[in-house]
Amino acid sequence: MSDRYFQHTFANGLTLLAERMPAMQSAAMTVLLPAGASTDPVDRSGAATVLCDLVLRGAGERDSRQLTEYLDRLGLQRSSSVGIHHSRMGCAAVAHKVMEGLPVYADIIRRPRLPEEGFTAARDLALQALSGIDDEPRHKLMIKLREWHFPSPYGRNTMGEPQELEKLTLDLVKTDWRQRYHAQGAILSMAGNVEFGPLREEVERHFGDWDNQPVPEFQIMPPPGRFHHEHQQSEQTHIGIAYPSIPETDDDYYTVRLAIEILSGGMSGRLFTEIREKRGLCYSVSAGYSSLKGRGSIMGYAGTSNERAQATLDCFFAELHRLEDGVTAAELARAKTGLKASTIMQGESTSARAGAIAHDYFMRGRIRTLEEVKSAIDSVKLGQINDYLKKHPPGPFTVVTVGPKELTIPGKQ
Amino acid sequence: MSDRYFQHTFANGLTLLAERMPAMQSAAMTVLLPAGASTDPVDRSGAATVLCDLVLRGAGERDSRQLTEYLDRLGLQRSSSVGIHHSRMGCAAVAHKVMEGLPVYADIIRRPRLPEEGFTAARDLALQALSGIDDEPRHKLMIKLREWHFPSPYGRNTMGEPQELEKLTLDLVKTDWRQRYHAQGAILSMAGNVEFGPLREEVERHFGDWDNQPVPEFQIMPPPGRFHHEHQQSEQTHIGIAYPSIPETDDDYYTVRLAIEILSGGMSGRLFTEIREKRGLCYSVSAGYSSLKGRGSIMGYAGTSNERAQATLDCFFAELHRLEDGVTAAELARAKTGLKASTIMQGESTSARAGAIAHDYFMRGRIRTLEEVKSAIDSVKLGQINDYLKKHPPGPFTVVTVGPKELTIPGKQ
Repeated sequence: MSDRYFQHTFANGLTLLAERMPAMQSAAMTVLLPAGASTDPVDRSGAATVLCDLVLRGAGERDSRQLTEYLDRLGLQRSSSVGIHHSRMGCAAVAHKVMEGLPVYADIIRRPRLPEEGFTAARDLALQALSGIDDEPRHKLMIKLREWHFPSPYGRNTMGEPQELEKLTLDLVKTDWRQRYHAQGAILSMAGNVEFGPLREEVERHFGDWDNQPVPEFQIMPPPGRFHHEHQQSEQTHIGIAYPSIPETDDDYYTVRLAIEILSGGMSGRLFTEIREKRGLCYSVSAGYSSLKGRGSIMGYAGTSNERAQATLDCFFAELHRLEDGVTAAELARAKTGLKASTIMQGESTSARAGAIAHDYFMRGRIRTLEEVKSAIDSVKLGQINDYLKKHPPGPFTVVTVGPKELTIPGKQ
Repeated sequence: MSDRYFQHTFANGLTLLAERMPAMQSAAMTVLLPAGASTDPVDRSGAATVLCDLVLRGAGERDSRQLTEYLDRLGLQRSSSVGIHHSRMGCAAVAHKVMEGLPVYADIIRRPRLPEEGFTAARDLALQALSGIDDEPRHKLMIKLREWHFPSPYGRNTMGEPQELEKLTLDLVKTDWRQRYHAQGAILSMAGNVEFGPLREEVERHFGDWDNQPVPEFQIMPPPGRFHHEHQQSEQTHIGIAYPSIPETDDDYYTVRLAIEILSGGMSGRLFTEIREKRGLCYSVSAGYSSLKGRGSIMGYAGTSNERAQATLDCFFAELHRLEDGVTAAELARAKTGLKASTIMQGESTSARAGAIAHDYFMRGRIRTLEEVKSAIDSVKLGQINDYLKKHPPGPFTVVTVGPKELTIPGKQ
């Protein structure tokens, strides 16, 4: 590790990661808590989402209003969200203000007040957000695609289920907080204008005696099927296609990333060129690599007019299968440039880096340096990628559509 | 001007702006062309949008595919869009790659091929994008709010009108390109790891002999009215509220920006606290300052369930009127911290700075330094802001709603 990176796991299981970016004035912090939608209690889908809102409604010495005002007075630009594996909180500001915010985040995570009126408001907002999804068919499609592609509970809608949210009580959320907001498996990362010594001391002071809990096991169940149509009287048809790939830790990871960059990176990507530019079939089309721990997937999306939907789906499948025939040296060169350019741009954002090192640690148990990523991208050979694509044809596919009419899916039995 | 900033207007009317950010590896470029939706020919709304797509489909020595592949080979992350005043193109990458891309952007802007088949595809995609808006009621609301708030042509939907797009021909677009893609009023800005001398030479080489044209006058017409309901069988009601404010060049500009930050900045902003956190009325609520040349507006949005829509609207109005009673010293201090924090974070992004200096020059005829912005924010006194708010009650209001049911609008005759 150069003096740019820092990594330390405390006795209680909390891992601290840091990246020094001395040219920056700002710093950004990411906290990953072992409270993702996949660990929501069986019949309480959405619990993590309500909890992640509720802990911000007063903590330690401060009630809801005092807490919000204090964080705004520090100038912290904040975000929080719930993913499959974690609840995530983040903030960014001038570096010393983020350090000042650290004890407050310890309050939020370890000493939330969890007030009754805050619970009601948080649950109502979660229900409102859910009911708003019918007005956003593209968002709805992506939720349904995850549900039908991933085994449960990995495919869960992180926003929850209405009937389960309605049964949620403050007491259940309090128990849940005790069980899931703990040090074991938690990750705190900071990137920007930070010094490792003082940061480690501060984190130890505020999180060193944080308790830990055994991480619960859960049962994995297959998804309901591979093909699903969601009827909606919409102007457009939204198409989602997914198939399994290798996890991030696999030797062929960069090979796959480059193949998908050729399929859908930049504006010379095959999907964009063939489906949008040449044939004008749809306005929006893309595919990307999606990562869960130990499990990678390719997930694609196209949104198009109802009349063009079947042609778009057929064309999308044709492009996926055309990967088996291999890619050209020029395509590979462009894909390398594109992926490396994203890596360099990400290296100039404290928020992006704080998120990236936390993600790396969770997926791989270590930080990848920017240099490692760039040289790994460079090292992929044309023979290697074409060999991989030939041996690993895409599929089996999950296909979900949202729109007024069901489509004919190539290869569906 | 410190050695961080550079500004030069060539004889043909093109202005070059630059900001040196030597700690960065990247650079970002923004080009503003005097071809915004407000200058679309009278019955050809959407022409700028089609043109902005079409010029990228082959230019100079390269056909559509060669052009796209070349730009991807440079690793340029690109964007383009049409606003009210300008068509905008932007790219970002490692600094020397952006410099390599400069002559290609000269081709795109000055020597586009404008091919027939590209025209058909570009127009079809524009029509598809338009028809997709019915699936995005929030986006639709914002378009309608602009149409009903701003005088025409400032309120025009930049995406165009279906019946006018259908009448568009390649010949009309070619004429339009000659009339609107020219040096007079064009702005090219670059921020990042750049040297002023070589940059100026390169821009002069590729754009120095670019022709210019008189900028056409257009007739300004009042909007159709102030209150509009757009019936849609949606799950949520979307509410837009707008009222006139002062332009960016006004002495009270920072006063107004701070007042709106108090209304809607951070999480302690009044709208968020009162409407979302305390009363749980809606999931999403916000207001912001919106800038056209010589004309400022405050534009607000709330999205909520149909049952809560009336209460949300009433509460939104109450908060707007409560501004007249003044703000507290604590609110002002938080707002200053929040606005300054955004300014500092923006100062670490080459793309954000390239966009900001181009915007500044168009609105004010000069670049604001980051220090100027920070000290102007700091200089606003509590007495000054409260005096302003008392003398300038909000209104007259434009209110647009999208949803299944019309609402009662406070103060509507």
